[in-house]
Amino acid sequence: MSKLYFEDFEIGHVAEYGDRLVTAEEIKEFAAAFDPQPMHLDEEAARHTIVGGLCASGWHTCAMMMRLIVDGFMSDSSSLGSPGVEEIRWRSPVRPGDRLRVRVTVLDKRDPRTRPELGFVRLRFDVLAAPDRLAADAVINVMFARRIPRAAASA
Amino acid sequence: MSKLYFEDFEIGHVAEYGDRLVTAEEIKEFAAAFDPQPMHLDEEAARHTIVGGLCASGWHTCAMMMRLIVDGFMSDSSSLGSPGVEEIRWRSPVRPGDRLRVRVTVLDKRDPRTRPELGFVRLRFDVLAAPDRLAADAVINVMFARRIPRAAASA
Repeated sequence: MSKLYFEDFEIGHVAEYGDRLVTAEEIKEFAAAFDPQPMHLDEEAARHTIVGGLCASGWHTCAMMMRLIVDGFMSDSSSLGSPGVEEIRWRSPVRPGDRLRVRVTVLDKRDPRTRPELGFVRLRFDVLAAPDRLAADAVINVMFARRIPRAAASA
Repeated sequence: MSKLYFEDFEIGHVAEYGDRLVTAEEIKEFAAAFDPQPMHLDEEAARHTIVGGLCASGWHTCAMMMRLIVDGFMSDSSSLGSPGVEEIRWRSPVRPGDRLRVRVTVLDKRDPRTRPELGFVRLRFDVLAAPDRLAADAVINVMFARRIPRAAASA
């Protein structure tokens, strides 16, 4: 696949990337570094929490989603980073043994007024645990360089 | 400080937690695992990107924010986790040598109709790099158990 530029994103396009196996070891390692709460740190302690067993930190789920996105298409794109996230919903617990993939939907595209060399693409990411359980979803704006800058006249 | 329950959050209350030193080593380690893009992986490669030098993945910034929150107050609270994030904005690059802290503002509280034992607290988190540069901000809903369940009559 050739490198993806702003022009290449089509509104409504859907693609899936992954999968990635979630392990108890990685859940605990991430939690120990960034989110040391009982439901993410220890099976026995997690059993007594609202989620009833070990599950990944929501931020770990986001980080795994990002890795699937980067490997899936972003590393071979003109991505210039993201100004932020519109929404994330953690829909169901991510457990050891889950196999995650990401479904990416192109929601919108936008030309910034003052930057003819780039554009914003509004993307929806659905994190799915095999076979088809929705674990999380997010709407994120990403900047991509254009292959050809807009003419100044149309800016 | 005694354990925080839903009843203890006062709308408008502001508190700060931290700080945490950001290192180049940790930026690269997180990026290698979850966000392997040039601006997060390598100083020289980062110099040629839009951000002009090594900076943390936005997800790494969120993870560091979470650690400050957990250590700051959440580990000694009745937190039951979060259904999701309303918004995250990555405002300025987080660089090696930055010292991050988190300013937490209580925005709103909400009683769910069907769950008298808990409530939702809508919190704003400002991630500040010393002395006072805004690096990121987020609005997140968190569930906290009540100290005393609401009476069925008022549910």
